[in-house]
Amino acid sequence: MPHDPAPSLLYDTPPATPAAAPRPASGAAFDWIDTARAERHRAGLVRTLRPRPADSPLLDLASNDYLGLARHPEVAHGAAEAAHRWGAGATGSRLVTGSTELHAQLERALAEFCGFEAALVLSSGYAANLAAVTALTARGTLVVSDAGNHASLIDGCRLSRARTEVAPHADPEAVRAALTGHDGRALAVTDSVFSVDGDAAPLPALADACRSRGAALLVDDAHGLGVLGDGGSGALRAAGLAGDADVVTTVTLSKSLGSQGGAVLGPARVIEHLVNTARTFIFDTGLAPAAAGGALAALRLLQREPQRAARARQVARELHARLTAAGLAAVRPDAAVVSVRAPSPEAAVRWAADCRAAGLVAGCFRPPSVPDGISRLRLTARADLTDDQIAAAVDTIVATAPQV
Amino acid sequence: MPHDPAPSLLYDTPPATPAAAPRPASGAAFDWIDTARAERHRAGLVRTLRPRPADSPLLDLASNDYLGLARHPEVAHGAAEAAHRWGAGATGSRLVTGSTELHAQLERALAEFCGFEAALVLSSGYAANLAAVTALTARGTLVVSDAGNHASLIDGCRLSRARTEVAPHADPEAVRAALTGHDGRALAVTDSVFSVDGDAAPLPALADACRSRGAALLVDDAHGLGVLGDGGSGALRAAGLAGDADVVTTVTLSKSLGSQGGAVLGPARVIEHLVNTARTFIFDTGLAPAAAGGALAALRLLQREPQRAARARQVARELHARLTAAGLAAVRPDAAVVSVRAPSPEAAVRWAADCRAAGLVAGCFRPPSVPDGISRLRLTARADLTDDQIAAAVDTIVATAPQV
Ligand SMILES: Cc1ncc(COP(=O)(O)O)c(C=O)c1O
Ligand SMILES: Cc1ncc(COP(=O)(O)O)c(C=O)c1O
Repeated sequence: MPHDPAPSLLYDTPPATPAAAPRPASGAAFDWIDTARAERHRAGLVRTLRPRPADSPLLDLASNDYLGLARHPEVAHGAAEAAHRWGAGATGSRLVTGSTELHAQLERALAEFCGFEAALVLSSGYAANLAAVTALTARGTLVVSDAGNHASLIDGCRLSRARTEVAPHADPEAVRAALTGHDGRALAVTDSVFSVDGDAAPLPALADACRSRGAALLVDDAHGLGVLGDGGSGALRAAGLAGDADVVTTVTLSKSLGSQGGAVLGPARVIEHLVNTARTFIFDTGLAPAAAGGALAALRLLQREPQRAARARQVARELHARLTAAGLAAVRPDAAVVSVRAPSPEAAVRWAADCRAAGLVAGCFRPPSVPDGISRLRLTARADLTDDQIAAAVDTIVATAPQV
Repeated sequence: MPHDPAPSLLYDTPPATPAAAPRPASGAAFDWIDTARAERHRAGLVRTLRPRPADSPLLDLASNDYLGLARHPEVAHGAAEAAHRWGAGATGSRLVTGSTELHAQLERALAEFCGFEAALVLSSGYAANLAAVTALTARGTLVVSDAGNHASLIDGCRLSRARTEVAPHADPEAVRAALTGHDGRALAVTDSVFSVDGDAAPLPALADACRSRGAALLVDDAHGLGVLGDGGSGALRAAGLAGDADVVTTVTLSKSLGSQGGAVLGPARVIEHLVNTARTFIFDTGLAPAAAGGALAALRLLQREPQRAARARQVARELHARLTAAGLAAVRPDAAVVSVRAPSPEAAVRWAADCRAAGLVAGCFRPPSVPDGISRLRLTARADLTDDQIAAAVDTIVATAPQV
């Protein structure tokens, strides 16, 4: 029996707990893990954690700190002050004790900045995507989901009761076709900027396809907020779709805003619906005040220094132009992610390791983290990179590039 | 087509984006929300957010801040200092740039305190449960899940490829029966302390049932850490199961540790498997340094003041004894949650509102947040409640109790 609402419980009958000592543990229950581990090693797909020190001499082109705000003194101060003022944790679900005036302030600021009626802050962008997809769908809903979507949107589809159709990547006509002939509620779901290759979704055409079929549109703007749109106000503003009655967007506070957390933005009735029905909102502790305070400080800073957004895009274009000129297969960046292809997972790992040895941290994306099986170096442009740092990064990447 | 690995992508062919302006938005795509809203209002099940100020005069018996640490100066300082030292955010996935030495230190401290070989910190307890259930199961695995389990474990079951059987609440013999006859991998999943009624799972008997059938046991110790076990070291230590080769536990940093985040604890090979396969770990930004720093400070404080755990349990027993003596239907607490039944959702809401008007914040659990449809006042015992506060709370709850 799958987990479904209202299983019959017998809380009234306290269960008898046998007093006998349990039999001794045997590790055999997890022996299958050794097999999986051996397979990973054979395939060269082992992942390990590499904790970094507070002050690393390495040049970072791997984080999603697009605006260079995570360690900005104002942002760190916003986080620290919130911890002192509100406590280290929110202490409960947002519906019980976990909503502070700080959360409400952040929600108003995000909604206003991105041009939506209302916003709801959750503990992560992942949780925001799970909340949006599950709360906006039901049995009988059709979800049309881009093949390149982020894992959190995919998990949202898997968790929902809806039927999901995966549409070819960035193909509005395929979305229109999938929606055609479906009777009842429908939702198209897409990243605004795809996290692996950094390419942008064709949002106006997607909105048009949805509208021609009466479907709603959900856009994950994790990599658009702070980078795209006027002063970094996001991909929806850039596409002229912000605040539209049939559009919902999710953002994360953990990339351009340098903090942690996520939010769903949309019409007030949609947000109210999520408050009442989204499980990853209702059954999760509210975002820590320090994360809310850090994100709010970053947002204020970005509003004061809107040129940071344009600079991040410019750095990305610069990286792409120079890497391409050197003969590497880099994807033209639509935002601040620059993806460079590698001939194999092993070559990608070696390339990233060689970069690191030369003082540069680059992301390395391999299966199963890439939907198409192609391994890449993934570089992120930061608004605070200097021209010298850009030049040094390009030199290192080119010098260590695998011979194809 | 459901989302599955390796859909065929055509990143090489940039899609044609029609230049025409999209047709105007229509709100009709979300009109179904008005119907759902009207139904909620009719059923008296509307939830609203009530942002609290930094300094509330109300007495809090609703948060999960069991040890009163969320606003402890040492804990707030630990969070603030981490923000200054490490930045407001982790800046990336734990596998890319999001692992700091602070995360590693917290992981070692948690593992040692709870008596497990290794630990992995995630952005929330919810994410930790999704990670543990999905990464430890596969198509063909049988998951036996307690009917009273937390939403995050249930969502983990729904996300996993395994077959889930829901076992009656706290019934080890039912778990044994469900496991009997299944060929292949199996996992029993349970809360240690159930969040709604505060009753404890019969862990030794459950472990025995699992071992008799070669199954692994996953225990969500969200409400046990800091309250149960020697010095608050958790339900698994209390049950003599900590560190066993076939046992995995999840904890949250957002309740007794007064912060945000979650962790999975278990044998090193299990943790290594999660690093390599758990989607809510791999595709999520690492926990914010301030949350890690706050939790670590709380853990250090608890190690120095282990009597806090016993005091939380004592306050719960005290509340229960007095409420029961006054004729209310309170469940005998096994940890620090005291659940008092209300005759209806409306009565529960009114009761909580009357308490609030009298200066006391109590939790109000109603459908669909309660698996058995029974509404309750949910009180949480805090180790830092004074005897006067306990007396005042009991007076208020009794004076405002609905007449049955
Ligand atoms: C496109 C996209 N959506 C959502 C997320 C999840 O956001 P968060 O890390 O804040 O949980 C990420 C990355 O982490 C992402 O790249
Ligand atoms: C039993 C249980 N497990 C897991 C969670 C989720 O933990 P977190 O709030 O840290 O995401 C909660 C409550 O929030 C809980 O009560």
